[in-house]
Amino acid sequence: MDEPPLHPRVETVAEDIETMETRGAATIADAAASALVTQAAESRAETPAAFRGEIRAAARTLLDTRPTAVSLPNALRYVLQRMDGESVAALRASVERAGSSFRDQLDRAQDDLGEIGANRLRDGDRVMTHCHSTDAVACIEHAVQQGKAISAVVKETRPRKQGHITARELRELGVPVTLIVDSAARRSLGDVDHVLVGADAIAADGSVVNKIGTSGLAVNARERGTPVMVAAQTIKLHPDTMTGHTVDIEMRDESEVIAPEDRAEIGEITVENPAFDVTPPRHVDAIVTERGQFPPESVVTLMRELFGEGTREPWAEPTTREAERRPEDES
Amino acid sequence: MDEPPLHPRVETVAEDIETMETRGAATIADAAASALVTQAAESRAETPAAFRGEIRAAARTLLDTRPTAVSLPNALRYVLQRMDGESVAALRASVERAGSSFRDQLDRAQDDLGEIGANRLRDGDRVMTHCHSTDAVACIEHAVQQGKAISAVVKETRPRKQGHITARELRELGVPVTLIVDSAARRSLGDVDHVLVGADAIAADGSVVNKIGTSGLAVNARERGTPVMVAAQTIKLHPDTMTGHTVDIEMRDESEVIAPEDRAEIGEITVENPAFDVTPPRHVDAIVTERGQFPPESVVTLMRELFGEGTREPWAEPTTREAERRPEDES
Amino acid sequence: MDEPPLHPRVETVAEDIETMETRGAATIADAAASALVTQAAESRAETPAAFRGEIRAAARTLLDTRPTAVSLPNALRYVLQRMDGESVAALRASVERAGSSFRDQLDRAQDDLGEIGANRLRDGDRVMTHCHSTDAVACIEHAVQQGKAISAVVKETRPRKQGHITARELRELGVPVTLIVDSAARRSLGDVDHVLVGADAIAADGSVVNKIGTSGLAVNARERGTPVMVAAQTIKLHPDTMTGHTVDIEMRDESEVIAPEDRAEIGEITVENPAFDVTPPRHVDAIVTERGQFPPESVVTLMRELFGEGTREPWAEPTTREAERRPEDES
Amino acid sequence: MDEPPLHPRVETVAEDIETMETRGAATIADAAASALVTQAAESRAETPAAFRGEIRAAARTLLDTRPTAVSLPNALRYVLQRMDGESVAALRASVERAGSSFRDQLDRAQDDLGEIGANRLRDGDRVMTHCHSTDAVACIEHAVQQGKAISAVVKETRPRKQGHITARELRELGVPVTLIVDSAARRSLGDVDHVLVGADAIAADGSVVNKIGTSGLAVNARERGTPVMVAAQTIKLHPDTMTGHTVDIEMRDESEVIAPEDRAEIGEITVENPAFDVTPPRHVDAIVTERGQFPPESVVTLMRELFGEGTREPWAEPTTREAERRPEDES
Amino acid sequence: MDEPPLHPRVETVAEDIETMETRGAATIADAAASALVTQAAESRAETPAAFRGEIRAAARTLLDTRPTAVSLPNALRYVLQRMDGESVAALRASVERAGSSFRDQLDRAQDDLGEIGANRLRDGDRVMTHCHSTDAVACIEHAVQQGKAISAVVKETRPRKQGHITARELRELGVPVTLIVDSAARRSLGDVDHVLVGADAIAADGSVVNKIGTSGLAVNARERGTPVMVAAQTIKLHPDTMTGHTVDIEMRDESEVIAPEDRAEIGEITVENPAFDVTPPRHVDAIVTERGQFPPESVVTLMRELFGEGTREPWAEPTTREAERRPEDES
Amino acid sequence: MDEPPLHPRVETVAEDIETMETRGAATIADAAASALVTQAAESRAETPAAFRGEIRAAARTLLDTRPTAVSLPNALRYVLQRMDGESVAALRASVERAGSSFRDQLDRAQDDLGEIGANRLRDGDRVMTHCHSTDAVACIEHAVQQGKAISAVVKETRPRKQGHITARELRELGVPVTLIVDSAARRSLGDVDHVLVGADAIAADGSVVNKIGTSGLAVNARERGTPVMVAAQTIKLHPDTMTGHTVDIEMRDESEVIAPEDRAEIGEITVENPAFDVTPPRHVDAIVTERGQFPPESVVTLMRELFGEGTREPWAEPTTREAERRPEDES
Repeated sequence: MDEPPLHPRVETVAEDIETMETRGAATIADAAASALVTQAAESRAETPAAFRGEIRAAARTLLDTRPTAVSLPNALRYVLQRMDGESVAALRASVERAGSSFRDQLDRAQDDLGEIGANRLRDGDRVMTHCHSTDAVACIEHAVQQGKAISAVVKETRPRKQGHITARELRELGVPVTLIVDSAARRSLGDVDHVLVGADAIAADGSVVNKIGTSGLAVNARERGTPVMVAAQTIKLHPDTMTGHTVDIEMRDESEVIAPEDRAEIGEITVENPAFDVTPPRHVDAIVTERGQFPPESVVTLMRELFGEGTREPWAEPTTREAERRPEDES
Repeated sequence: MDEPPLHPRVETVAEDIETMETRGAATIADAAASALVTQAAESRAETPAAFRGEIRAAARTLLDTRPTAVSLPNALRYVLQRMDGESVAALRASVERAGSSFRDQLDRAQDDLGEIGANRLRDGDRVMTHCHSTDAVACIEHAVQQGKAISAVVKETRPRKQGHITARELRELGVPVTLIVDSAARRSLGDVDHVLVGADAIAADGSVVNKIGTSGLAVNARERGTPVMVAAQTIKLHPDTMTGHTVDIEMRDESEVIAPEDRAEIGEITVENPAFDVTPPRHVDAIVTERGQFPPESVVTLMRELFGEGTREPWAEPTTREAERRPEDES
Repeated sequence: MDEPPLHPRVETVAEDIETMETRGAATIADAAASALVTQAAESRAETPAAFRGEIRAAARTLLDTRPTAVSLPNALRYVLQRMDGESVAALRASVERAGSSFRDQLDRAQDDLGEIGANRLRDGDRVMTHCHSTDAVACIEHAVQQGKAISAVVKETRPRKQGHITARELRELGVPVTLIVDSAARRSLGDVDHVLVGADAIAADGSVVNKIGTSGLAVNARERGTPVMVAAQTIKLHPDTMTGHTVDIEMRDESEVIAPEDRAEIGEITVENPAFDVTPPRHVDAIVTERGQFPPESVVTLMRELFGEGTREPWAEPTTREAERRPEDES
Repeated sequence: MDEPPLHPRVETVAEDIETMETRGAATIADAAASALVTQAAESRAETPAAFRGEIRAAARTLLDTRPTAVSLPNALRYVLQRMDGESVAALRASVERAGSSFRDQLDRAQDDLGEIGANRLRDGDRVMTHCHSTDAVACIEHAVQQGKAISAVVKETRPRKQGHITARELRELGVPVTLIVDSAARRSLGDVDHVLVGADAIAADGSVVNKIGTSGLAVNARERGTPVMVAAQTIKLHPDTMTGHTVDIEMRDESEVIAPEDRAEIGEITVENPAFDVTPPRHVDAIVTERGQFPPESVVTLMRELFGEGTREPWAEPTTREAERRPEDES
Repeated sequence: MDEPPLHPRVETVAEDIETMETRGAATIADAAASALVTQAAESRAETPAAFRGEIRAAARTLLDTRPTAVSLPNALRYVLQRMDGESVAALRASVERAGSSFRDQLDRAQDDLGEIGANRLRDGDRVMTHCHSTDAVACIEHAVQQGKAISAVVKETRPRKQGHITARELRELGVPVTLIVDSAARRSLGDVDHVLVGADAIAADGSVVNKIGTSGLAVNARERGTPVMVAAQTIKLHPDTMTGHTVDIEMRDESEVIAPEDRAEIGEITVENPAFDVTPPRHVDAIVTERGQFPPESVVTLMRELFGEGTREPWAEPTTREAERRPEDES
Repeated sequence: MDEPPLHPRVETVAEDIETMETRGAATIADAAASALVTQAAESRAETPAAFRGEIRAAARTLLDTRPTAVSLPNALRYVLQRMDGESVAALRASVERAGSSFRDQLDRAQDDLGEIGANRLRDGDRVMTHCHSTDAVACIEHAVQQGKAISAVVKETRPRKQGHITARELRELGVPVTLIVDSAARRSLGDVDHVLVGADAIAADGSVVNKIGTSGLAVNARERGTPVMVAAQTIKLHPDTMTGHTVDIEMRDESEVIAPEDRAEIGEITVENPAFDVTPPRHVDAIVTERGQFPPESVVTLMRELFGEGTREPWAEPTTREAERRPEDES
């Protein structure tokens, strides 16, 4: 089957994502949604089927640039699942509306999430952070804006020490910061009211994929009676996992862990540098999104609501059998 | 009361310990026991009381040099509690015998401990280490000598990265090593057969004082079903804790955690750098000493056996009342 | 902006709630829904916008009387979220229908809940109660009506000893009752098949706000292997918590805890008398509502279904931006 | 009230189910849905009310044959809840469409479930099974088809040793199998990456009813840090439990446990042979269905989506009051 | 066999204990030891066997007055196990020495215990108490004397509200006190550094028998990460439990729980008023005695050291076989 | 070095043990002690050293017959550690006395243990057993003799179904028995007051080696709040484990698990049939021995008391260095 013609802007956006000219979960999602809207607006398709085919093709082109990102397919899913109509005009309008709605929500998401997360914090609370997450910082920022005194214990987060970034941003908000090495976390957990972290992805079984060290921290927080709160916009939800797919853990460069000269001195060793780990839902108390907070075990409901059931991706061309059973499926 | 005359060697040893000329738990203990033996051998005391007073005074002088060390008072306790006899000659002989016995045991302790610890390891086992402990390494070394294939996951142990030392020593033993950052521990715990760490001190309530990060590791090991084994010679037992004393946690230099220039860039923050933390006994499976292995809850029995009940230090001058009740107490 | 004209009955109902003439979660909710229906029926608004404005204003007036109640805003939310239509007539009909439906459900709720809760109990079961909850008693009542022999261990529930009320009501149902002090609960938990309590509020993170002592009981029940069941009508769901708001715990009069004369004898002390505590979802097995039973982690789904997403209250006047994006939001 | 006339095929299907001519959860469900479609197609009802009455009567007839099965009422619920229309023709079409959709889904369910479950398994994983479940085997089969090397530890599953069936089927797939007695499970759990079992029923509180021994295995898996995965098609969901009903545990023949001659030799004893036990959701990590995987605490959402709220069965004749409030309920 | 002649003072002491003229664990123990010393001093026995028989008979007479007390038999055991000698004179001296030693230790015990317990507390610590225990108060008193600022959360301890006594005594020490009902404990546990309670008896399996409510508090403390410390003089050790005997839990008067008039109003109910409950050792962190602190699992060692193995009580007349094997047993 | 001459009876006893003519833990231990006594009585050694050498050689000969048994070396350790004296006559007497004492104790051990274990049981208690242990049955037998009504849930204990033996013996005692398959244990644990099992060996780290399935049962008992009691005579203590040695788990014949014909039908599979597993001390509440009951964490103290420190076996010939340091070691 011939691929339908794509608008040049789709190609440009795809290229920018691929070359990492466009980067950051939210920026990528925004660009992708915008590209679909352009494709819809400028489409010369004459039949609904042709139009649908074009939009799907555009989505596949965008998707191919970074197959393992989470926000990119979520943007595409959101728009394509809302593509609906009996005519090209209606279809076009639906894509434009969905794209615009997605981008609007994205625009407000961190702010809304920050407000919700801040509501969980009380005046005088002490928070422990791991790594750097703009979503987590947004919660503290909103709490400060609500007039609450918040202080923070910041884990440095080896190997890349993103805790330093968190420390700096919290200082700019006027939050008193205590910096510790990661190993010192348990000792401070008794003096802390919340563990607050971000997420790279949230899976359908309620587990949280986040910077290496999160799961060990959560286990210790549970043992010490300290609640764990994860701040994650809904573009971090990982619909692939609804169909059982697991999240591949990226292994990063070994030189982040040990300088080559130190390594040479030790002799021949293996170095493992996993970027993330997986925290089971039973060690997490709440996931804060811009759509409200959820127990981790309930996030799958939100995932299905936003991105469909996940058993079939909306950019795939429908098979004959599927076309036939669709009406009933949608009832 | 006049202090009894001390032998010059006692003064020298005391000074070397104070100036850290003499350092390391075992070396200090050995020097202290040796100084007591010299004092006993060269004593000119003419009455048992005078002799006892001299030995006690020597002990107090040595003790004052490093009041927070653990091995130093243990050496003194061991010798003084075995000082016994009705005449100066008998007392002298008892001190010489006890000092010699203590030093002999010290000499063999790590070897004996290593053998016992190695017996817990099976051929093919994978061990996770934290920080650097010669006692822990001795266990692996003996296992290798027993012909067992052992591999190791070595935590780097921020802030001072003593894991690099462990890695090098294990490499020299031919042990395959995988180096990870501390935060990556939980991810590897499922593939590991033992957590094996040393100890700075063992308390009477069974808790283990060791390098910061040990307690968090132990909590995670329990959650993953991985047994935790602590290798600690009996000079690490902390008899003060029998009378409820807690172990002060040293706060080390903040520049170990963050370089001053990085800190300046962040702004005004607090940095906390505790050297140790405390692992409750319920998260430890066995404490391996040169006198055998013990559940942590039973170590207090060994502590009492080796160093007395601890309610009264043997270097203190006896009160009249105590002198009277001693015979019954010893029955 | 001028406030729209309110029907006198709305004012009366508001006043009765404010003066606590009208009290009890269900009675307040019923009165509020009824007031909205009256406002709708008697409205003289000529445009849909004016009508909507009136109903919102009525809701705000009612809400202001008891800002911390849970059932009051839930009644308002239920009705306003179902207000829909293109004409005043259609809007009026929708409010009347929603008000009527809400009141009907309220009418049947405890009975339906009791039936569902009773189904969890088996013939011969022994139940432990805390405080007094008509919802919890309804479960036992229905079980008795189903012909099951149920017995109860009733905790007295200091400081106000509401356990005495529970004991009396259960006696009236013919249920054998054993009264104990709160501290005796753990000793009896091994002989009990269920812990059964009510709730003052259920939060979006699945935690249960109930009479002080509930959380400690639930922790012990989990440790002893006894399941915990919470009986709570859906008017106890707390939609504010979807946006992260926490539930303020009322501090009650200190004289409930200690008589002034006893206190005077002791000397200057602080007395704390919190009315409620918060039980995390992991210590609760099921929440029984009139809409079925739910794991606590899933209640948020029911909350969203009944009362909306909670990110924006339906009685607030819409902003321009919101008015624009509404159509898409509702798709 | 006179029962409406039923099509002879309904009677035949009912009889075949009753006599266990038709058996197996999926086969029964398929036959029941098919019978409803026949009744709809051949109905001579002249009014919508009469048609609805006929379909309900057919459902009741089918249901009566095996009141405790789970898949049978689920098939009936699925079809009847989708019966909708203003005319007989529309109603007939809706039943036919729903019946066809249900059967289509049933047809694909195990395959879809197997694919989803297989995605949770990684190349090289070792799986422990209990009893025999075609759904669980389907997960392994798909993993093998995906090119993954999977090995299995198969518990024999006393008293009926269905583990032998599992062993044989896995061998046919080329999966290396290690057979153990049930008591040996904990010893192997440390070497296993997943516990994978099927289910007889999934309850609304998230608990899993499955072959006796499952709950004890799950408790041990949690203690050893091994995740537990339950494979269960949605026809295993048990909507009755939404209204608090518990699942009766069948007590099977005592001779499965001990041969009469061995028993006679022992003397007079009681033998208990429960077929199933109940695993609480906190010991299960994921329930894999053909509609995706779910944390056990979220399955109730799927249950409500597929089979309604459960407070009223669709085959019951509506009461006057219900008929009146229906429009609002459906809004 | 004729009972040997007893000194009148033994009879008097026995009577005073029986009539509760003499009461309180320490007072009873002191009186009993003193009576044995009198019997020894005034004995007219002419053979060692006769002397031994007299002392045993005196012990049995004393014991019979309060068979369930703990401190009474402990005093007797302590003295009789130290009765030793080949002549009447030697035996008499040994009893006098042991009696005197026991009474001396008793005299100092609470003070020594308080010192040890105080060492576990740090400056600024907040302690939660249950019931009233002079041993527990002694720990706080010594901490205050050590110059530490200690504050306390005092549980009222229904039904007899001994918490009021604790509150008053702590106020007299200048300790800030917050009084709460028992049910409010969990809410405060996060702000508390220690749970500190006394004990009525300590069993050989490490479990702690103490005022009803202790075990539930300990379970919650463990869940919140708060350590639990039990203050108990060694006369609270319960050597009977070494031979498996369990401690009978006294059921106290029902009118402590509910006033007769309130009860009459409720109708016919059972009231249970157990005085104590049993806390398993895994929920206790340390038992503080005047002989040092111990993990609860190690107390059996101290019990055996102080009171013998417990398989045979020292006041029993020896059987022929025992007399023969004694020498070896004692080796 | 020439081996010293052994008495023919030592050879005979050794042969009988080796050929399993003599079998059973207690019988073997008795025979071994008896052989040492014979060797001592009939020795023609003329010097203490020669005598000691003979006894050691006899011990080694006996030991070599069954190197993995536990009771055999314990008998030898017990006797040899008590061999003491300056002359052949004194040494001979000490061996005879120790041998006689050991055999006496062995003779009474099960009876004493049964009495102690019975004391833990209360009238009306229900006990769950695993496998068959005469020590465990002795506890129930004594409880019955004490007039207590005891009932039992007996696990069949695949693969060899020793539960049938337990069932028969309990029936002979008049105990009501309910037989279940092993997998049904968790379902019954809520109705049971104790889990009561025997042990094959008790290790120094407090873990219990017993019939496969014990550890899984203990984990479930802990989760359900049911205490676990292990009945084990002190000959089951395993002093080798004090020096870290682990207990090898015997793999038994595969045909116990599956009949060859059934296996052939399945195809090529591995069958694993481990005889024992290891229960960590944290899942055991008490170990009942004839010397009293102990928390598992304290058993090491009893082990050291009975059998020495274990760092050096008493049948080994002393090295020169050891000979020199012995006096001090024994001080």
